[in-house]
Amino acid sequence: MAQSNTVNRRWLLASRPHGAPVLDNFKYETVPIPEPADGELLLRTIYLSLDPYMRGRMNAAESYAAPLQIGDVIVGGTVSVVVKSNHPNYAVGDTVVGYLGWQDYAISNGKFMEKLKGPILNHQSLALGALGMPGLTAYFGLIDIGNPKPGETVVVSAATGAVGSLVGQIAKIKGCYVVGIAGGPEKCRYAVETLGFDKCIDHKDDNMAQLLKEACPKGIDVYFENVGGKVFNAVLDLVNTGARIPICGLISVYNATSYPVGPDRISAYNGKILSKRMRVQGFISTMDYGHRYKEFADAMGQWVFEGKITYREDVTDGLENAPQTLIGLLEGKNFGKVIIKVADK
Amino acid sequence: MAQSNTVNRRWLLASRPHGAPVLDNFKYETVPIPEPADGELLLRTIYLSLDPYMRGRMNAAESYAAPLQIGDVIVGGTVSVVVKSNHPNYAVGDTVVGYLGWQDYAISNGKFMEKLKGPILNHQSLALGALGMPGLTAYFGLIDIGNPKPGETVVVSAATGAVGSLVGQIAKIKGCYVVGIAGGPEKCRYAVETLGFDKCIDHKDDNMAQLLKEACPKGIDVYFENVGGKVFNAVLDLVNTGARIPICGLISVYNATSYPVGPDRISAYNGKILSKRMRVQGFISTMDYGHRYKEFADAMGQWVFEGKITYREDVTDGLENAPQTLIGLLEGKNFGKVIIKVADK
Repeated sequence: MAQSNTVNRRWLLASRPHGAPVLDNFKYETVPIPEPADGELLLRTIYLSLDPYMRGRMNAAESYAAPLQIGDVIVGGTVSVVVKSNHPNYAVGDTVVGYLGWQDYAISNGKFMEKLKGPILNHQSLALGALGMPGLTAYFGLIDIGNPKPGETVVVSAATGAVGSLVGQIAKIKGCYVVGIAGGPEKCRYAVETLGFDKCIDHKDDNMAQLLKEACPKGIDVYFENVGGKVFNAVLDLVNTGARIPICGLISVYNATSYPVGPDRISAYNGKILSKRMRVQGFISTMDYGHRYKEFADAMGQWVFEGKITYREDVTDGLENAPQTLIGLLEGKNFGKVIIKVADK
Repeated sequence: MAQSNTVNRRWLLASRPHGAPVLDNFKYETVPIPEPADGELLLRTIYLSLDPYMRGRMNAAESYAAPLQIGDVIVGGTVSVVVKSNHPNYAVGDTVVGYLGWQDYAISNGKFMEKLKGPILNHQSLALGALGMPGLTAYFGLIDIGNPKPGETVVVSAATGAVGSLVGQIAKIKGCYVVGIAGGPEKCRYAVETLGFDKCIDHKDDNMAQLLKEACPKGIDVYFENVGGKVFNAVLDLVNTGARIPICGLISVYNATSYPVGPDRISAYNGKILSKRMRVQGFISTMDYGHRYKEFADAMGQWVFEGKITYREDVTDGLENAPQTLIGLLEGKNFGKVIIKVADK
């Protein structure tokens, strides 16, 4: 069933995943399209962004944000068009980026959304990728926490993903030597040939740690962490004095149901942080850097529209395919920024 | 045998400790007093500082500094008096703070030392404590990395030690709520009654984690890490969003010969750093903040000489007692800054 103008299709959290999500964790339903009250808007979804953080929201545990409750519409960034407006700042036909979740229609009071203007209107899904939350994440995680200097070695995991692909390209613009880590030879080739990274290591190679060492002859100054697990272990053996590790994500462990076997290396890790005088810092881009959005949008917008930064989208048609696509994203099956095209326009 | 003016007593690394150091790891010898060449000084030791970092230097592994080699004089901060001078900037009788190790006499070219002037000459061992390296460590670790704000909760371990006692007092000056963690009721009482901490928890209490939780009803914003191990685990359960953890030392694990049993919680720790948007940063005060020494000395000197910061020294007489005293320090037997009084004056 495609998007209609009579019902609202939506996906709810049916049950919490144990390990990797399965289709039964998602519930599909159709409900009437809501009516906006005074001061409100009715929005129709065009694009839905799928991102790794969604897995965390499906757990019961509070993380940086409250967990989804069973029966809640699953959260997600969206590009939408205004269908009805009782709000003075928005007119029917305006295109906005917001956070309206896995559904065709939503009511908004106009907060936590931005009207799209200018050249991005010709490529609206950019507002969910390079010029949206993933871009903000890459930009400030690298520049503010990673603080890369020309000639330094920057390593980024999930290197062809929505965030990682931007991190590496920004690091190249900043004059760094950039090594990506990605899954499989096709992604690695793309990272070097299209994104312009100096090297890219396949984390599926049994010899990954040795290959990473050979690719980083001067050690690692900045590691932009997206994955955790064995990649992190390999990186930790190669960090230089004064290394910075922005922790953006840990996709390799989001589906884990138990900790890895011991020994417990927390003390060893803190000992390395001490002896190498490292800085390890977690961040949530919208919370830590949302107030600096314009600074990011100006810089990244220029790079994107001048062609200095390239991007790749992995677009799936149809809201009905969102659960399977998120399951695949968590397995690394995507190649580029994952977008669900909910409606043609 | 006391200090003489005919021989140089000194302690060498005889063998590397496996676990806790034992007396056999240290070798005592007497050698002739060296003669300074042109541009050099001969220094006679008055005070020797003993500090936890010395344990790390006894290992074979390179840390932030090269390891001691077997047969090397053991390193250490010293207050010394100039006995002979072939250096234009120093005169016989000058008192200097330097890094001349576990011995009575040493040659210096005048680098990496400072002449003591002003009121500190009346309490020279302060140059090895509150107004020396431990003070520098406490000051910048807390202020630059911890960045405490009035009303925030600051927790510091090894709370009555050379560094921890200063950290807590500076945090009080900055308007924070301060909770110390120390070994035994006598140290805890001192932390509250004399140092002015709000609370102090005994890490030897089986109920330590629960007591810490009760002592930190608003969670923990800054944890100044000196110890590692079970104290760190208890703290990690209580950190607030945006918490900062300066990692200064890990004394509880310096003598460890194996990692704790699993599971391996590195991923869980990084997950916490991410979801709590924390900053964890290791530092070596002399390397990271040596260039800002004057800023520290001005502030701390004023606090100390105005009586706003108090300090406690644990002084042992006689260079011959240095090994046993370091062994005790690593077991937490000291109460205050550990100083070896090598000579009366």
